[in-house]
Amino acid sequence: MGGKVRAVVSLGHDALGVTTLEQWDQVKETAKALADLIEDRFELIITHSNGPQVSMIHKAMTELRRLYPDYTPAAMCVCSAMSQGYVGYDIQNSLKAELLKRGIDKGVATILTQVTVDPYDDAFYHPAKKIGRHMTVEEAAMEERKGNFTTEVPGKGYLRVVATPEPLHIVEIDAIRTLADSGCVVIAAGGGGIPVIENNGSLKGASAVIEKDNIASKLAVDMNADILIILTGTDVVYRGYKTDAQEEIRQMNVKEAEGYLERGEFEEGTMKPKIEAAIKYLNKRPDGKVLITSLAKTREAIEGDTGTVIVS
Amino acid sequence: MGGKVRAVVSLGHDALGVTTLEQWDQVKETAKALADLIEDRFELIITHSNGPQVSMIHKAMTELRRLYPDYTPAAMCVCSAMSQGYVGYDIQNSLKAELLKRGIDKGVATILTQVTVDPYDDAFYHPAKKIGRHMTVEEAAMEERKGNFTTEVPGKGYLRVVATPEPLHIVEIDAIRTLADSGCVVIAAGGGGIPVIENNGSLKGASAVIEKDNIASKLAVDMNADILIILTGTDVVYRGYKTDAQEEIRQMNVKEAEGYLERGEFEEGTMKPKIEAAIKYLNKRPDGKVLITSLAKTREAIEGDTGTVIVS
Repeated sequence: MGGKVRAVVSLGHDALGVTTLEQWDQVKETAKALADLIEDRFELIITHSNGPQVSMIHKAMTELRRLYPDYTPAAMCVCSAMSQGYVGYDIQNSLKAELLKRGIDKGVATILTQVTVDPYDDAFYHPAKKIGRHMTVEEAAMEERKGNFTTEVPGKGYLRVVATPEPLHIVEIDAIRTLADSGCVVIAAGGGGIPVIENNGSLKGASAVIEKDNIASKLAVDMNADILIILTGTDVVYRGYKTDAQEEIRQMNVKEAEGYLERGEFEEGTMKPKIEAAIKYLNKRPDGKVLITSLAKTREAIEGDTGTVIVS
Repeated sequence: MGGKVRAVVSLGHDALGVTTLEQWDQVKETAKALADLIEDRFELIITHSNGPQVSMIHKAMTELRRLYPDYTPAAMCVCSAMSQGYVGYDIQNSLKAELLKRGIDKGVATILTQVTVDPYDDAFYHPAKKIGRHMTVEEAAMEERKGNFTTEVPGKGYLRVVATPEPLHIVEIDAIRTLADSGCVVIAAGGGGIPVIENNGSLKGASAVIEKDNIASKLAVDMNADILIILTGTDVVYRGYKTDAQEEIRQMNVKEAEGYLERGEFEEGTMKPKIEAAIKYLNKRPDGKVLITSLAKTREAIEGDTGTVIVS
């Protein structure tokens, strides 16, 4: 490859693990895949999921208050900020160490990221993203009284649900661009970014979650990325996943992808949002490219030996 | 004032409060003082304390584990990273909102910061910084068995003590410089930064705390700041603080400051490290200036109506 290729990389749960120690171990492996990309002349802007992490932090802050009532509640935006610090540090630390080991002198920095959303976004009227731990019916009623929404999960109890609005503007995009342009690897918009609502000169944290793939797509557009790399649990995308008609897709264009979406060929909540994110990016950057594969197969997929490529 | 003046601002506990809601309220006031400085043509690099914040997070993570033993321990470096996310978000959010209100189009970004320390730093042999909550003698013995150090606080129990090594190198300094040079307000090295030890290409989080004033001094040197502004609990520096001979100091040079230090005129753990930090910076940047005052009096102090100025 000749010049630099700008890539937005979206890391899923597999890249991070669940507990602090799992994450510590897993992130070292993740760092190797990322360092491979850097050696292959990719300029990286990295974003990551934070589901288990923010849920752990939220649980910890809730238990703290139960034991020490002097502490005040930690809003979702605060827990999300903590999770960006936590995951960002682990990735930044491991990746910097991996680069040092390979003799690559390159900065790696995490930028705490807020993302504005529209308070009238339709998603706020239909909160659908399940978060947190399973609750009893009494606990769920308590949440509802606090103004939150819950949903029943048959046989398991109740879960809180939050809205997943569209990202409007990445508040720190200029900082992310400045750093990336300077040659620094940037970790940004972890967990989708902290959703905020702009109102009369305030930026109020919203009880919402921006989908990780959605923000990765927006980052790729805003950063004018040459490629959006979505690393997930499977090496390739399947149509009819886990059905008798399961078939792998190694390459598709936007029109084909839209067709599969219409026919419900991709799983809700896992592959479907990734394909939607890919299409959004490609519609705004028709000369771009999306690669969906697993962390372990990143290098092979870059070389075309596995993975699914989507082009406009 | 004509051109831009680069300032490193060190925020103390007063700027942040203790609980999540206190911090939320207090940071709004802090944002006003910071926005005043920006209006007065200061380019800001902001660093902050994190004592109560990291202690709250550490306590929460410990309680979480007690209730849900599947979770693994959160090391001090992880809690510190979370606190950088938490405090950085609140400052970044409130300051950006305050700037929007005033019609100032300026980026504000937090960079997660690691700082290397020397594993053979003398401080590791004499851990002295008290952290966390008071423990019983049994709990203290447990900590000691885990390899941690504790000290007795007469009448109150035991506290864990950690080393306060010298900062060697701010790992993300290039990113901080790039952003500040681009005109962005940068929040960095919160809580002194996450101390890490470089060893065979790994950056291992250390059980230590870098003194906030010490890192502010280093940031001011590395960033070639024109002024180091230390915001604390008093409007001016006193010699013989809280003694009969208490006397305010409005101006001193390094030699005078060293004389006061030798005679033990500044309180250990509060004013003494600030004066030491000031001297370190001025020794490396003799044309610099240090201003020590309270948050509420920042603007008056800039105009010379209060505060203590130290020059070389």
